[in-house]
Amino acid sequence: MNKVQNIKIGLLGCGTVGQGVYNLLQMNRDKYQPVLNNTNLEITKILVNDINKKRPNIPQELLTTDPDEILNDENIDIIIEVIGGTTKAQDYIKKALLNGKHIVTANKDLMAINAQELLDLGNKAGRQIRYEASVAGAIPIISTIKENILSNKITKVMGIINGTTNFILTKMFNEDRDLKDVLKEAQELGYAEADPTSDIEGLDAARKIAVLASIAFNRSVVLNDVYVEGITAISVDDVNYAKLFNSTIKLLGIAVNNEQGIEVRVHPTLLPMSHPLAKVDDVYNAIYIEGNAFGDLTLIGKGAGSLPTASAVVADLLSIVKDMNRNIFSYENRSCYLDTEIMEIEDTLTHFYIRMIVLDRTRVLSKITEAFADNDVSIDSVIQKKLENNLAELVILTDKVLNKNMMNAKVQIENLEVVKEIKSLIRSEKEY
Amino acid sequence: MNKVQNIKIGLLGCGTVGQGVYNLLQMNRDKYQPVLNNTNLEITKILVNDINKKRPNIPQELLTTDPDEILNDENIDIIIEVIGGTTKAQDYIKKALLNGKHIVTANKDLMAINAQELLDLGNKAGRQIRYEASVAGAIPIISTIKENILSNKITKVMGIINGTTNFILTKMFNEDRDLKDVLKEAQELGYAEADPTSDIEGLDAARKIAVLASIAFNRSVVLNDVYVEGITAISVDDVNYAKLFNSTIKLLGIAVNNEQGIEVRVHPTLLPMSHPLAKVDDVYNAIYIEGNAFGDLTLIGKGAGSLPTASAVVADLLSIVKDMNRNIFSYENRSCYLDTEIMEIEDTLTHFYIRMIVLDRTRVLSKITEAFADNDVSIDSVIQKKLENNLAELVILTDKVLNKNMMNAKVQIENLEVVKEIKSLIRSEKEY
Repeated sequence: MNKVQNIKIGLLGCGTVGQGVYNLLQMNRDKYQPVLNNTNLEITKILVNDINKKRPNIPQELLTTDPDEILNDENIDIIIEVIGGTTKAQDYIKKALLNGKHIVTANKDLMAINAQELLDLGNKAGRQIRYEASVAGAIPIISTIKENILSNKITKVMGIINGTTNFILTKMFNEDRDLKDVLKEAQELGYAEADPTSDIEGLDAARKIAVLASIAFNRSVVLNDVYVEGITAISVDDVNYAKLFNSTIKLLGIAVNNEQGIEVRVHPTLLPMSHPLAKVDDVYNAIYIEGNAFGDLTLIGKGAGSLPTASAVVADLLSIVKDMNRNIFSYENRSCYLDTEIMEIEDTLTHFYIRMIVLDRTRVLSKITEAFADNDVSIDSVIQKKLENNLAELVILTDKVLNKNMMNAKVQIENLEVVKEIKSLIRSEKEY
Repeated sequence: MNKVQNIKIGLLGCGTVGQGVYNLLQMNRDKYQPVLNNTNLEITKILVNDINKKRPNIPQELLTTDPDEILNDENIDIIIEVIGGTTKAQDYIKKALLNGKHIVTANKDLMAINAQELLDLGNKAGRQIRYEASVAGAIPIISTIKENILSNKITKVMGIINGTTNFILTKMFNEDRDLKDVLKEAQELGYAEADPTSDIEGLDAARKIAVLASIAFNRSVVLNDVYVEGITAISVDDVNYAKLFNSTIKLLGIAVNNEQGIEVRVHPTLLPMSHPLAKVDDVYNAIYIEGNAFGDLTLIGKGAGSLPTASAVVADLLSIVKDMNRNIFSYENRSCYLDTEIMEIEDTLTHFYIRMIVLDRTRVLSKITEAFADNDVSIDSVIQKKLENNLAELVILTDKVLNKNMMNAKVQIENLEVVKEIKSLIRSEKEY
């Protein structure tokens, strides 16, 4: 046995994830020591806002409110950043890199807008930046894409990467309840925040798919490149029609590498029940990937939570420490060396589900299908249901069509006298 | 751009997988070059039995029947072994290591019986041995356990790791057909071999779970340590009763790390439809893992095939070449440094499903339940079905019980006058 070596770690932030990291390092110390050739991992300082807040298990003497006490500490080798947000976190990470520290971060906000600058800065400093925990909690999706399936050209990444919306849509599907009602329950259970905007408007998922697309396609994709639609317009009627098509509705982050360019989008999606993502329920996350050698691969796991997220943070940490022990640098910070075109949403091809209220009289369907045909939108299947007052509800699934054409068809249909209202328009991933 | 460097590779074997490797290296050359800092990967020699066999795309001038022409070639840096089997493959790998070559192998037969010696030999030679492709084809399960979730203590690994039996059980479940009938179809489709023993008797799955258990628990587990039961005793009646319990029957490889030791077993398993593995159908493979931080994680993908298996082989290859380019050694061949006890099957705890034909008269059930009680086997649920001739069929699910006790209960029940025949006894993974 070698002499016990100490690696000193500074922890920025001590909320749910920070405490998870601290606890996991204690809990699995006996596993890590032999794996790390007897190296001991020690969190020596923790940055917090309020020293007196109750944090079970965390020794108060480690706490500080002064970031420089950690960032300028020459004895600290690695910084774990679990504050979140962009401003302060970015300043701290930059300073830490300049001071020669490796970085492990769970910060999707930051990595979705400024990953490339930080990764380059890491390269210049000769230090690693790892961010497995920034996407899909415990699922090791970044390492998987970056290393384990590197032998493939990845053509598609599609994921349930927001637990809050998956919880809501699962409840709507299983319990026939409307969104507002379920959202309230999610808030009470702590699965949704008091201000749920970032989750239900799709922004959280958009950040994560930007990070994944960058790694999968070797091309920097940032939040602004992502087309985003949230779930607020989804009604329980849509969910029930989905069932009639043997499908479900999920909020998906989708990135596709086409010949014409990359498309990256987040939106509610009609998905056949036979798809591996369709039965991923509640707060589970899952990512489905297509590659030109493996075919398809799906990873399912917990997307959030104290220990699940810490699982990813500490895996990154162990990886860095193994390199430090061997005095090597086996990791590539930056893998975006292409500048593939990023497509506009109008130019992408998807299936659509459209639901509308129409007059219940002859020739209505023919007028509507004509409007579709005028815009090169071909129809896959139709359900029509009689309503009261001489109205009918019409649900149409289209073939895979140009989004631009579908939007034009929608406008034309809205202007038809026989159409009272278009209730919803949802993309569908029928082929996979 | 750096000058193009050539890494020369020797390929041992050129069947389905070998051809997949050759084709994939051509197909994705443009992706690998920048990833590898402009290094070029070149298969310079291929060992085959018969030079004149038809192999589309493979240049005949690369072929040789003399292994030494490859193993002794000083220009070859890496050997890919896709012959399979133990004798020759082992000799070649040993010789290649001694000659300073890194090894990538897809050989589960060999790694399930002699991994540790080979890995140690690799260490002595300062060369890497990678074997991702030996388990579950395209699913990067070895890298995932060994690196991506290293932060966890793994408590359980449970997988559908044999495509042939999964195809058969899926067809039995979906089409209500018996095993012999489906096996014949599988053979016609090329999903089962002419002699299907290794697959349907569970030996193939046993080799793979031995490899996975070794990596997950840091303790060498070999084929002989695995308790094995195949699927030949499964009837369509059992599959239909499983449906009544809202379950399916899958052949699973299961490895559990208990306080008393490690249990490693392969057997047909009753599995609730809500389990992530339950809906993994046809020739797909899937592995479900439990860890003390991430909770549970499931990977689903193709378990076999030319390009899917090549995906894993080439991922290993790229990993070695990245290290060679940096002149580092970032990989640990051997990770089995514990000598945890391996439990006997009698000492393990599982749920059971038992189906028997009994006399249809009063007190029969009470006599049977008494026999269970005598042996400390508690009952979870019962289905009784009237048959002709004053007989009844009785299906009982037990709680989680000591296997030894269940076997004793079975003997006692078999000897009851009221019991005509025990038709089947299947383990169940009810809790997960």
